[in-house]
Amino acid sequence: MKTSPHSKAQSAAPENPLDRLVALLKPDLLAVNALILQRMQSEIPLIPELAGHLIAAGGKRIRPLLTLASAALFGYQGTRQHKLSACVEFIHTATLLHDDVVDASDQRRGRSSANALFGNEAAVLVGDFLFSRSFQLMVEDGSLDVLRILSNASAVIAEGEVLQLSTANNLETTEAQYLQVIRSKTAELFAAACEVGAIIAGRPAAECQAMRDYGMNLGIAFQISDDVLDYAASEKRLGKSVGDDFKEGKMTLPVIRAIAKANAAERNFWNRCMTGSGQKDTDFSEALALLRKYNTLEASLTEARRYAELGIKALTGLPNHPLRQHLQDLIIFAVERDY
Amino acid sequence: MKTSPHSKAQSAAPENPLDRLVALLKPDLLAVNALILQRMQSEIPLIPELAGHLIAAGGKRIRPLLTLASAALFGYQGTRQHKLSACVEFIHTATLLHDDVVDASDQRRGRSSANALFGNEAAVLVGDFLFSRSFQLMVEDGSLDVLRILSNASAVIAEGEVLQLSTANNLETTEAQYLQVIRSKTAELFAAACEVGAIIAGRPAAECQAMRDYGMNLGIAFQISDDVLDYAASEKRLGKSVGDDFKEGKMTLPVIRAIAKANAAERNFWNRCMTGSGQKDTDFSEALALLRKYNTLEASLTEARRYAELGIKALTGLPNHPLRQHLQDLIIFAVERDY
Repeated sequence: MKTSPHSKAQSAAPENPLDRLVALLKPDLLAVNALILQRMQSEIPLIPELAGHLIAAGGKRIRPLLTLASAALFGYQGTRQHKLSACVEFIHTATLLHDDVVDASDQRRGRSSANALFGNEAAVLVGDFLFSRSFQLMVEDGSLDVLRILSNASAVIAEGEVLQLSTANNLETTEAQYLQVIRSKTAELFAAACEVGAIIAGRPAAECQAMRDYGMNLGIAFQISDDVLDYAASEKRLGKSVGDDFKEGKMTLPVIRAIAKANAAERNFWNRCMTGSGQKDTDFSEALALLRKYNTLEASLTEARRYAELGIKALTGLPNHPLRQHLQDLIIFAVERDY
Repeated sequence: MKTSPHSKAQSAAPENPLDRLVALLKPDLLAVNALILQRMQSEIPLIPELAGHLIAAGGKRIRPLLTLASAALFGYQGTRQHKLSACVEFIHTATLLHDDVVDASDQRRGRSSANALFGNEAAVLVGDFLFSRSFQLMVEDGSLDVLRILSNASAVIAEGEVLQLSTANNLETTEAQYLQVIRSKTAELFAAACEVGAIIAGRPAAECQAMRDYGMNLGIAFQISDDVLDYAASEKRLGKSVGDDFKEGKMTLPVIRAIAKANAAERNFWNRCMTGSGQKDTDFSEALALLRKYNTLEASLTEARRYAELGIKALTGLPNHPLRQHLQDLIIFAVERDY
């Protein structure tokens, strides 16, 4: 394939803050990836096979990246961040595997997820293995502070996932409940990933807390934006699949706000679509029209921007290091990205 | 209800070694149960509701009992064994919840398990919560040795469960694979539960290892006996449900040995029944007849007795304490029980 004037040169600077961080921390990320591949091994072949399906697929590696960036920002000189980044990614992967388990009575999702390829039982058990392996790695590292942070995060994530189950298909879900769900299931691990970097650098409590606050707000902003993109992405960039949350009746911020303003007919529409009483092909564009009518996609992004501001404020409590600017760019990108 | 000469008086000594251990360690067990109830709480109501379904149902509490007995045998005087017994039971409960998750493509089991009542997703996520909570409690306790033992056990359990998935419905399963499965999925946690008691008592490595060896052999003997009872229990005591393993095509020791000796017609029978190509109502008694023909139930118990002997031998490495005799009685009871 010939290069055109519009094609990116190999040496061009990465175009977004996430890719710039990846480039900056490349040697660390390679070490983390090697550790992940090495420590997901087991003499039971199905384990690396299934785990590899998810892990080798790549993904953004944003959580381990946060641990690496945090350690680097605090000038940490050792290599503990590699193992602990792998821990964070294993916990995330276990969560993904368990999150995808389909209720036997409800098989509407048609994705080629690990559970679809290998079965629910295998996906659950390999998730358990990765989760246990993560704690084995933390024990090898030997810090009770890290073990406390990541065991707390794991418990909070599970609570958030259970709460999300209770709010799905429930039209009465409040904005406060939505925020509790995303704070728990997403932001808590972002916060922990950041905090761990500060802990191993031996920083004072205030800086550990500031780094944690940054991660928490990044996670919230990131998840709100994700929930907006599940409705709006196709408008901005082709190829992104949209409508998954709608199909599953997930009560996300744009929908909660549109329901709060709905008239009787609209409420009937949401009731039919979100509570699983059957959706028609035209329903998604109808839903999108209602979100536009009440401007709730933009209002949700405004909310996400508010959390991004809080995250940027938290960064001011950290040492003045070039990575601080990268983390600031990242939190803005988390909100403004179009994919 | 009047007491007859045959009814048990309230004050009579418990009739079996397990009940005798329970009676002996009653105050400790009550403390553990209180901790379990307290620490399975969450502000997300579904979590204690679902966890309580399994935990409040009671169960034998044999694993926490082992930690309590081990600590007491070594003369440990503190209270750390209560929290760590709760950890062990939480890990076991999480495993049970995940073990019961039904593959969407295979809903043959008809039990009223937690996943049947609350759905697969909830059972998985509450299992994750209990698992995380267990590690939180270990961190509170603060021993990296305990964390190492129980995170290793958790990883090995998950590996055993995955291996069991691969051997189910597989007529080629070997005795070595069967032993690896039960060693991992059952005996490893028995071993860890015992070892933890020795660790908190600060005993030398040889005694910790001896206590661990006892638990490992107890777990193996217990599981082989369990697998025999799944075919033989009804003959000994009415009311015990049998045949679950057969219905699920689980390759347990009595079946593996009968298949090894099967003629062509019998092999066809096992092939049809164990690989899920459909079972008839009369198949279970046919299977039982084949196990009797080759005497594999008794041969399996002989194997279990061999492990019990190894466990008893391990006990000789422990301090001379009355509990040592109770543990010896328990391992014999694990094999010879009829329910």
